[in-house]
Amino acid sequence: MTPFQPVDPDFETRVRRGFEAQAAMRLVGARLTTIEPGIVEIEFAHRTELTQQHGFIHAGILATVLDSACGFAAFSLMPAEASIVSVEFKINLLAPALGARYRAQAQVKRHGRTITVCNADAFAEQETGDLLVATMLGTMMCLEGRTGISG
Amino acid sequence: MTPFQPVDPDFETRVRRGFEAQAAMRLVGARLTTIEPGIVEIEFAHRTELTQQHGFIHAGILATVLDSACGFAAFSLMPAEASIVSVEFKINLLAPALGARYRAQAQVKRHGRTITVCNADAFAEQETGDLLVATMLGTMMCLEGRTGISG
Amino acid sequence: MTPFQPVDPDFETRVRRGFEAQAAMRLVGARLTTIEPGIVEIEFAHRTELTQQHGFIHAGILATVLDSACGFAAFSLMPAEASIVSVEFKINLLAPALGARYRAQAQVKRHGRTITVCNADAFAEQETGDLLVATMLGTMMCLEGRTGISG
Amino acid sequence: MTPFQPVDPDFETRVRRGFEAQAAMRLVGARLTTIEPGIVEIEFAHRTELTQQHGFIHAGILATVLDSACGFAAFSLMPAEASIVSVEFKINLLAPALGARYRAQAQVKRHGRTITVCNADAFAEQETGDLLVATMLGTMMCLEGRTGISG
Repeated sequence: MTPFQPVDPDFETRVRRGFEAQAAMRLVGARLTTIEPGIVEIEFAHRTELTQQHGFIHAGILATVLDSACGFAAFSLMPAEASIVSVEFKINLLAPALGARYRAQAQVKRHGRTITVCNADAFAEQETGDLLVATMLGTMMCLEGRTGISG
Repeated sequence: MTPFQPVDPDFETRVRRGFEAQAAMRLVGARLTTIEPGIVEIEFAHRTELTQQHGFIHAGILATVLDSACGFAAFSLMPAEASIVSVEFKINLLAPALGARYRAQAQVKRHGRTITVCNADAFAEQETGDLLVATMLGTMMCLEGRTGISG
Repeated sequence: MTPFQPVDPDFETRVRRGFEAQAAMRLVGARLTTIEPGIVEIEFAHRTELTQQHGFIHAGILATVLDSACGFAAFSLMPAEASIVSVEFKINLLAPALGARYRAQAQVKRHGRTITVCNADAFAEQETGDLLVATMLGTMMCLEGRTGISG
Repeated sequence: MTPFQPVDPDFETRVRRGFEAQAAMRLVGARLTTIEPGIVEIEFAHRTELTQQHGFIHAGILATVLDSACGFAAFSLMPAEASIVSVEFKINLLAPALGARYRAQAQVKRHGRTITVCNADAFAEQETGDLLVATMLGTMMCLEGRTGISG
């Protein structure tokens, strides 16, 4: 991965503030654990409320955390006044998501003025180590100067 | 869309039971409103807990409900003893998800013995009518006779 | 599907010119058969050169034609001076692509100023009728005033 | 990436034979340059026949080569008698594909008995170095004992 130079030196504060403004992250019980230029990690603990019918974390809950991780990884590289929206994402579920905790790692794959593309992986913390349970490829868009939407 | 013939005459009970077993659906406050062979609709009301930083429903929450709708649409066509997992899905966010209520409509696009592909749309109920806010294309897999995973 | 109003009354000529400028369409032997606002159809005949190891049309060749159909469906709604690029697409292969001819039908799902999202289906013409062999969900971007890229 | 152990010691011959059986690879002028367990590289030279309206390689042609690379990366890990089909793939176009040559690198992300998920990147060889022009996330399925489809 190419190391990225943030245009906004205050990117960390901006990402943290954006994360805290996402009520859905509190619903999941997610915590922002890493913020670097173009890289974000989010963690959450296992809770029954987040599962599907087999007792694994619901694919959509994994998608929620991976999408936020991708969004904030992209957001870390954007100008101070920009806001961000998800254009689309695709997720592959790779193994049953069952563990004590889960970790989503997102990194910018290609950063552009309007479109930024990110990869993200989700891992389940198991006794034998971390298991890769899902992977995402998503497209984020930078919005500047649109009324009513700000990061 | 082709009309589908369910192999399990009791598909509706089976889908309803599967839905009730998804704790994540309760977390979202989702309700199963339509079950037909190859077609499922799920609704939920707006709640601040489900939003992202702009006050719209988080893309991942939309994905959670659309994925469940796709899964159960596929599940309605499967044999009684089968269980189902999401292989992958892709979602496009089409408009800010803001409304009093939201509705996810999924339908099977192609049903196979192992792989079933579904489309789903999410609508926001607004004063001027229903607004299409997201669309999904997803791949579901039928599992038969695997220990520890049953629908 | 919502009927679309093209902003450029001359959209048909513009789409036809864009199609003729795609050398890859000639390589495939593709022909533009329908141009309506937000809707495009492209056909091509079976040729051994287009196949994979089982004798079916290669998934990537289907993707090539479906992507062009999506791109031109989006392009039909864009201003006269705009150009278009594919941001991303996802394709599901639904059945072995084997027939005398193949037809890709694309329609705009949501048209925006910058981003337009399209659906497309590919059908194989078989003796018993048309068989749905692939489906695409793709994201197209409108570029205006960028040097060196014009439709 | 986890290193993979091929179950078929003769995987390289099997992959090479599969590649040679893909007529579409000859149409593109593609050459198989690397075969390792779970890893495949394919290259092709720039030709006008492969371009879209801006003179760049058509997104679908990149998808064709990336899909083949993913398929053969997965195929390298499969049993000798298995055959493979693409279930679906998603591709993001990251930069205009313009260069003297192009290289698609695919690697298995998660290998399962039925489903194998692969990542692949495409690079354009430019004077200033290799430019990442596209990335794919795809799902491959292993078929065993189905009449009429063999690798």
